[in-house]
Amino acid sequence: MSLSKKLVVPPGGKTRIADFDPADPLAGVAGAPTTKDEAEAALSANVEVIADLQYRLYAENTRALLIVLQAMDAAGKDGVIRHCFSGVNPQGCKVTAFKQPSATELDHGYLWRIHHAVPPKGEIGIFNRSHYEDVIVVRVHELVPEKVWKARYDQINAFERLLADNGVVIRKFFLNVSNAEQKKRLLDRLADPKKNWKMSAADFAERRRWPEYMAAYEDAVARCSTDHAPWHVIPADRKWIRNWAVSQIVRETLESMDPKLPKIRLDPATIDTSG
Amino acid sequence: MSLSKKLVVPPGGKTRIADFDPADPLAGVAGAPTTKDEAEAALSANVEVIADLQYRLYAENTRALLIVLQAMDAAGKDGVIRHCFSGVNPQGCKVTAFKQPSATELDHGYLWRIHHAVPPKGEIGIFNRSHYEDVIVVRVHELVPEKVWKARYDQINAFERLLADNGVVIRKFFLNVSNAEQKKRLLDRLADPKKNWKMSAADFAERRRWPEYMAAYEDAVARCSTDHAPWHVIPADRKWIRNWAVSQIVRETLESMDPKLPKIRLDPATIDTSG
Repeated sequence: MSLSKKLVVPPGGKTRIADFDPADPLAGVAGAPTTKDEAEAALSANVEVIADLQYRLYAENTRALLIVLQAMDAAGKDGVIRHCFSGVNPQGCKVTAFKQPSATELDHGYLWRIHHAVPPKGEIGIFNRSHYEDVIVVRVHELVPEKVWKARYDQINAFERLLADNGVVIRKFFLNVSNAEQKKRLLDRLADPKKNWKMSAADFAERRRWPEYMAAYEDAVARCSTDHAPWHVIPADRKWIRNWAVSQIVRETLESMDPKLPKIRLDPATIDTSG
Repeated sequence: MSLSKKLVVPPGGKTRIADFDPADPLAGVAGAPTTKDEAEAALSANVEVIADLQYRLYAENTRALLIVLQAMDAAGKDGVIRHCFSGVNPQGCKVTAFKQPSATELDHGYLWRIHHAVPPKGEIGIFNRSHYEDVIVVRVHELVPEKVWKARYDQINAFERLLADNGVVIRKFFLNVSNAEQKKRLLDRLADPKKNWKMSAADFAERRRWPEYMAAYEDAVARCSTDHAPWHVIPADRKWIRNWAVSQIVRETLESMDPKLPKIRLDPATIDTSG
């Protein structure tokens, strides 16, 4: 079975997050690594291929690739970005981390700041959080009435359709970490001076809303997985499986896009090179 | 002698570009590699250190680093970015390539689009071309009257002073390629299907204006090299010297900034981790 087929959320389906195992070793998936060492070697190889294909995408300059990352805290959004995209030329690969919207952003519709950050032709754009927060954290914390967030699934599908129709290939990843593994990581992080500076009491408090978050994620991925912008549920309890799986789907996506170097615009023979 | 001291343009001086040798092997510079292999190993080591310091800069979240790259075509702006910054986490490292200004950008002052692209706190920003085009190509092609571009040196110095006063550390690099080496590279590029798609007849035509470009660069680096935003003239005829030299100055700059991981905001003991 192909990796993408195993992890993709079928369009129009009634997907349950609980049907995806956060600790899935991906056994039986063609090419899946079986050890951490194998996974790291495969990840490095993928990064090299991605870097090469990104050069072609940049040269071709007709399409873009948008990667959307969503997850509970400590599931590894930052880690996926660092491991899968360090090694890719930052000229042509931009990360946008969506934080709490500013006052100005709140004065606009929720897709305003998102549209602004969509990658231009030739580039890879990575969203660390995204418009999906507007149907996840906004729903869990009841920041807008239910009828407002419920209307957003269709709006998001239409928006992503617009992007796809204009040359933006979209792949969305939910990094699926288990409740127990998240707790372990947060406690480890709290004890690590290299990492605990970014923690606050809210990180643990949010855990009390775990079921509400899972319900929100479930609806988001089920209602907004489409052929042109599929969601993938990535097993995230093992970091090496998680990183390899994302890099593999990104690689396969770029390979299927098969960007081509353009032909020279002029006949070289007509160029006066005497200067 | 330190690398930075050897290559920096002294503030207030009457620097001549011709005094910098594009083929300078940097012999006598402390730590300078003497072979291509040595240079590549030193570059890799620098990229690792830069990546680590960038994480600290991101965590510290109080200052930014702005790298400005200017050069004649084929001197290696793209190559420097690829070699020195692939390997750095793209979350926290953004490249802005300034192309011909749009109609909207032309309706604003020339520093408007520049200011917008200045890196925020915690990030490294790389300008592939910059506001210096407004005293270089604009001058050479007489796109504005002389009194307009002449007034810009002071404006640029004041603008960069503003940025520096607000936590942006600035380092500027002129990649100094010789006329003969540029011609060789353009001819090589023309013959290479992996690269010739980006060429046009203008690339050779611009060579006829070489002396005007050198005069424009000379004034720009002499008038706008300041203690808070120094210009460095990088010998660019050998790619391995060029890449190492830029990476070394970026590394030394980040080391001198010495970004610190913040302390945790809360006493871990007060956090309720029972959730």
